[in-house]
Formats: sequence, C-alpha cells, structure tokens
Amino acid sequence: MSPKVVSSELASLWRPISGGLTAPLGFQAAGITAGLKDSGKPDLALLLAPEGAICAGTFTTSLVRAACVELCADRLKATDGIARAVLTNSGQANACTGDRGMQDSLQATQRLAEQLGLPVEQVLICSTGVIGVPIPIDTLLAGLNPLVEALNDEGGAQAAKAILTTDLVEKQVAVEAELGGRCVRIGGMAKGSGMIHPDMATMLGFLSCDVGISVDVWQAMVKRVVDRSFNAITVDGDTSTNDSLLAFAAGEPLELEHLDALEAGLTAVAQHLAKAIARDGEGATCLLEVQVDGAHSDADARRIARTVCGSSLVKTAVHGRDPNWGRIVAAAGRAGVAFDPAAVALWLGPHQLMEFGEPLPFDRLAASRYMQERVDGAYLSDDTARIRLLVGAGIGAGIAWGCDLSDQYVRINADYTT
Amino acid sequence: MSPKVVSSELASLWRPISGGLTAPLGFQAAGITAGLKDSGKPDLALLLAPEGAICAGTFTTSLVRAACVELCADRLKATDGIARAVLTNSGQANACTGDRGMQDSLQATQRLAEQLGLPVEQVLICSTGVIGVPIPIDTLLAGLNPLVEALNDEGGAQAAKAILTTDLVEKQVAVEAELGGRCVRIGGMAKGSGMIHPDMATMLGFLSCDVGISVDVWQAMVKRVVDRSFNAITVDGDTSTNDSLLAFAAGEPLELEHLDALEAGLTAVAQHLAKAIARDGEGATCLLEVQVDGAHSDADARRIARTVCGSSLVKTAVHGRDPNWGRIVAAAGRAGVAFDPAAVALWLGPHQLMEFGEPLPFDRLAASRYMQERVDGAYLSDDTARIRLLVGAGIGAGIAWGCDLSDQYVRINADYTT
Repeated sequence: MSPKVVSSELASLWRPISGGLTAPLGFQAAGITAGLKDSGKPDLALLLAPEGAICAGTFTTSLVRAACVELCADRLKATDGIARAVLTNSGQANACTGDRGMQDSLQATQRLAEQLGLPVEQVLICSTGVIGVPIPIDTLLAGLNPLVEALNDEGGAQAAKAILTTDLVEKQVAVEAELGGRCVRIGGMAKGSGMIHPDMATMLGFLSCDVGISVDVWQAMVKRVVDRSFNAITVDGDTSTNDSLLAFAAGEPLELEHLDALEAGLTAVAQHLAKAIARDGEGATCLLEVQVDGAHSDADARRIARTVCGSSLVKTAVHGRDPNWGRIVAAAGRAGVAFDPAAVALWLGPHQLMEFGEPLPFDRLAASRYMQERVDGAYLSDDTARIRLLVGAGIGAGIAWGCDLSDQYVRINADYTT
Repeated sequence: MSPKVVSSELASLWRPISGGLTAPLGFQAAGITAGLKDSGKPDLALLLAPEGAICAGTFTTSLVRAACVELCADRLKATDGIARAVLTNSGQANACTGDRGMQDSLQATQRLAEQLGLPVEQVLICSTGVIGVPIPIDTLLAGLNPLVEALNDEGGAQAAKAILTTDLVEKQVAVEAELGGRCVRIGGMAKGSGMIHPDMATMLGFLSCDVGISVDVWQAMVKRVVDRSFNAITVDGDTSTNDSLLAFAAGEPLELEHLDALEAGLTAVAQHLAKAIARDGEGATCLLEVQVDGAHSDADARRIARTVCGSSLVKTAVHGRDPNWGRIVAAAGRAGVAFDPAAVALWLGPHQLMEFGEPLPFDRLAASRYMQERVDGAYLSDDTARIRLLVGAGIGAGIAWGCDLSDQYVRINADYTT
C-alpha cells in the first residue's frame, strides 16, 4: 500500500503552464535532426539539468534490457543519484546489440560529457526505436556538437519532438504552484505506448523540477508516483526492453511541510503523460479508465484495475460499445488478488450494472450510448470510458488506464513487416 | 518441475481410434436438444462412467467461479474422487447467478441421480454459455428423461456436439494401446477456447479411460497432464469462470509398470484437444506452437512459452507473416522467469533468427513465406507456425500453443453486443 495518498485538494494547488521539461528554473533542452531516422524527422534530444541536480530512475523489469538501460541504472547507482544530463536517440533501441551496444552507449556519453564539461558518470543515455539494430554511431557523434549548441531554456518542445518514434502526438506538460512563498515548477515529456509500436521498443518518460530535495526522499517519491502513473497503464501487455523514467530535481531546497504538495504535482504531471501514452495507443479510439475501490490494499486495487484494463475481451467490448459486465468481472476474477465475488458492484460511467455480485437490470441502450459517444469522440473534452469496480469493504483504491482494442491495431501490427 | 517426462517412444505406443469419449470400455454418453439454446442446436450432454469409476477434476483458478464449478470441486473432495456421471448444459454458464445458480445445479444433479439410481454425490454438472443468465431449469429438468434414454456406448459424438457454444468444430479424440497384454483405451472431448467467445465462458474438457487405478495416482497424473496440455494454451489471456476438466477412469487394474505409458497416452489425448481449442480460437487462421528449451525447470520453460504465445505483438506478427524476432525475445524477457539473455537462440520453423542473444542474418523472405504458408493454409496437413527458443543450458523444456491474432478476432468481439 502506498504510504502517501494524493488528495485532490493538494493536486488543485497546481496550474498548467507552458514550457514542458524546460519550464522549471535552470533546465535546458534541445532537439535536432542528426540523421538517425530515414524519415528526416528530429532524432536526437538533450536535457541539461542545473548544477547540483539529482536524478531518480525507474527502468523496465524485462530481463532483456537495452544497453542504455544498463548504463543508466549502473551510473545512478554509482553516483548515488547525481546526474546532470541525458541524451536520447530515436530510431534505434540499442537492445539485443551485444557488446557493440554498450560500447556505443559509453562512447556517446563520453563524448557528450567532454563537450558539456561534466564527469561522464553524470551523463545518461536513453535509446528508442528498432530492436536489434545498432545505432549509426558516427552519425550520432557528429550530431552532438549542433545538439549542445541548440541547448536553450525553452527547448522542451524540440526535445519532446526528437524522442518520438511512431507516436502520433507529442506528450509534454508542465505545472506550477506557490509552495512556501516561492514558485515551484514541474515539467515532463514522454514517448511511446509500452511496446505497442511495431518493433519500436520503449516508453520513455522524463521529469524536471526546480526544488532542492534529498536523493532518498526524491527516489522514494518518484517510485510512488511511477506506480500511480506509468506503471498503471497498459496498451497491449507487452513490456519493452527500454522502458525508462528519469526524474531530475535541482534548485532551492523545499521545506519538508511542502513535500506532500510536491508529490501531488509530480503525480499530476506523471499521470497526464501516462494517460497521453495510453490515448496514443495504436488503433485506440478512446481512453479506458478502470477504478477499483474496496480492495485490501492499493496495490491489490491497482492489480485488479490493470488486469481489467488489459483484457482483450474488455478492450474489444469497449470498442464495440458493448456494456459487457461479464467480461469485466471475469477479468477481475483472474487478477490473482483475493476479494469477495459476492460483494462486487460495477459501474460503467453513470450506469450501475452489478450489485452484490449479481447483474442488475439497466438501460442497455443508454450504457451502450455512453461508450459510443466516447469512442466516436462526440465529447471532445471527454474521450474517457470509465469503469468502476467495488470489490469489498477494504481501504485499497487504485486506477489503471488503457485504451480500446480496434481492428486497426491488428492491421497496423500485422501489416508492418520488419 | 514435472517428475515425469513423456517420451515420444511411449507416446508412439498409442494409435488413434474412433468413438471419442465412449471409446473406452463401459462408458456411455448422450447428447440431445433440450431447448436451452435459441438456435435449436443440441444443448444437453451426459457421460456415464462404469461402476467403480473414479474422477480427477481440475478447475478455473478465477476467483469468480460458476456454481457448477463449486459443486464439482466440493463433491469430488467429499467423495475422495468417486464419481459416475457428469451432466453438461450449454447456453448458460450459470456464473454470477447468486443463490439461484447453486440451487439449480443441486436440483439438476439430484433429479439426474434419481433417474440413474446413483448417490447424488457421484453426479456432477458443468455449464457453459452466457454469464449472468440463469439456466431455464424447468426446460433442463424436462430434458433429463430423454437424455438418460439416449445413453449408449457410441454416444461420444452426440455428447461432443451438445457441449458446444460458439465453437466452429467439435473436438473429440480417442486412442488405444496394448499394455500388459490387454487393450487400454482413452477418450476425450472438449469445447471452447478459454474465454475467447463473446460472453461464452468456458473451456470444458472430459477424459475417459478403461483402467482401474488408485485415486491418488490418477489425480497426480491428471494434474501433470493438464499442465502440459490445457494449461499450456492461451487464446486471449482471459481465464473463464467455468474452466473445468473432468477425467474418469474405471476398469481392470493396470500394472504399475505401465503407468508411464498410460500417462503418455493421456497426454497425447489432452494435447490433441487443447490444440484443437487453440486452433478454433476466434479469428484464428493458424496454430502457434512455442517450444522453449534450456530453462531451469519445465515450469519456467512453460511460463516463457505461454508468455510468448500470449503476446499480442507476437500474435499479430504471425498473422502478418512477419519474422519479428524482436517481439518474441521481448515477450520472453517479461515472463518473470530468470534466464541469460546472452544465451538466447531462436528459430522460426527451420530458420534460425538469433544466436547468443543477437540477431543473425537470415533469409527474411523465406522466413516470411514459412509463416504465410501456414496462415494461408497452403499446407493442410500442417497449419502450425513453430517458434523455438533456447534460453540457456538448463534441463527445463516446455511447449505452449495459441493462435494468431487477426482483425477478424476484434470484429467478432467488438461487434457482438450482449
């Protein structure tokens, strides 16, 4: 169970601002076209955090990890969370590339560290793109000089473009709040949709924040935030070889009394990006949100929510505007979490479909219309199909996000040939 | 790890025969139309095992279980595996039907026990069909008399028809072998594809065998066989509320020295039925077989194999005839099983795609053609796309079966509205 619950009151302290990753004070970024992608689209991004920055990282749990993931995890461990810069190349995932993969990651960060005048241990690298294809390393190295020259304190938008692969939209966000008489800002950007893209491994997420905070507190906070955001989305159940989240913080120290408020802001930013990834899932026409209440613990609730969210039968039912409660409760039953089936209640948007484990009579047409309006995008401001499941009288609550499963998803993934 | 490995030598003792579930000596079956389905198709089946029969059952691990599953599990526990008959109704799953669901199951078995002159504890019931809809119990009860009258020792085929819901084909098989100077026969029938069918919960499997065997030995053998067959298939990852396998045995005692041969035959029958279920998956155009070798244990190998088999990205790649090794190894990496990524070798049919964790140059066109021929059904005798993954030097081996994921699957499951 998460020790911290994010209150909506604290979340409401934060207001959206522009600037993405470079909205927080002192953060610089850049994104350029180095020639790594055949398409000629931007493919090299750089984030530079201010002096004294710390970084918390969370990485894929897959046993098959890209060279860059090993490098990031090793360096953050060796420096105890001290890092200043992260380079991202898009086009090649640098996974399953053997010794050469690690050599390329080492060389790229070494050369960049020299250009930035930083110790190499404080420079990280993320890669995203096709698995098994090495990075054209000379092309990447030739791009470092113009990349560093392009660094600026409004570069968040360019960086957000340069990390994309087959994403349809950029994903960046920033918020600010007054905490302890000063303005605190949080920025973020992300790419991908789990491993939904053909051969495009990677969800990458980056967060920036202009507060001084101890590494231990920051790492624990980032872990909780990731559990409630990126780790709560699923598109196709395929965990990638490159999944990484790097969260940088640097600035004036923040008083301890404001930590909860900071976590609320960080959660809002991370959830915004995570939902943007689910919404951009291949073939997706709507966002699916599953809320579970009454479980024994938050972790149990999230596990049930994510299982329902990831069920092919639930996803196709949503796509088909079918208020198919049987599929939802059947998916919950296989989540591997104990609950009392006789206590289950179920809502689809405003429509209650079950009570005490049994189906209720409900307006099938209206429930179907509720989903249809979301799939068809009739409500531009709300494309979210909401399922709420009550599984008992416990205090555990959790939310997961996903998307519907359309025939478009299959065509995209079947027709694409490496 | 399975204590028993089935040798192909032992499996080759068994030859296919006709008769399905009623091929073994003394087993009777029937299938009739009682009027439970609107379609007017057969919907009530009965299997009657000879006097002295024992029964081993394995059931869904879902927390949301149908009333009939509870009843079967309870009775087999209470009688220590003594059972003579099982009734199956198709059309209604009798899941999420509350107290009424259990009352209906009790009443149906009570009435049937009276007609058969058996103790009620020795009569079981399986249900398959729509979740949440009660069985029209008067219709079922009225069907019991004609059902019992229809019992005969060649009734396996009728029973195999009457347990179907949206299955496209019947699934039954029988084999025989000379063991210890006598003829031993094993029969089986099954229905469903996990929970692939719209609202149609249930994979049901039934096995019959004309040998006398101790309950403990039989139960342990059936559990191992189910792990290597029904528990090794996946179509859409959705475990149903009704999954049940009931295996009956009755006849002259078999000498202990032939137990391994018996297990080989039972495994062959169960794998035949399990593969038939995967092949009949909605929208499926070919069978997918994933073999994993070199794992620490058989259980580890099966877990990797099933994860690869269940990956949406692998399934769409097979459907799209894409030799996409990156998706296969990425899926293996998230199986939650330890192995050395640098030791991985991968074959697609006769084509080797990876060695020592890195891609090999291979004939992409020929590898794609290998899958195309299977998807297109060019080889009628072999519609199986085979993936083989070597993950180390361990002794663990395992196979899983599934099917490709086609846009047809999505359309069937999205367009169908309850």
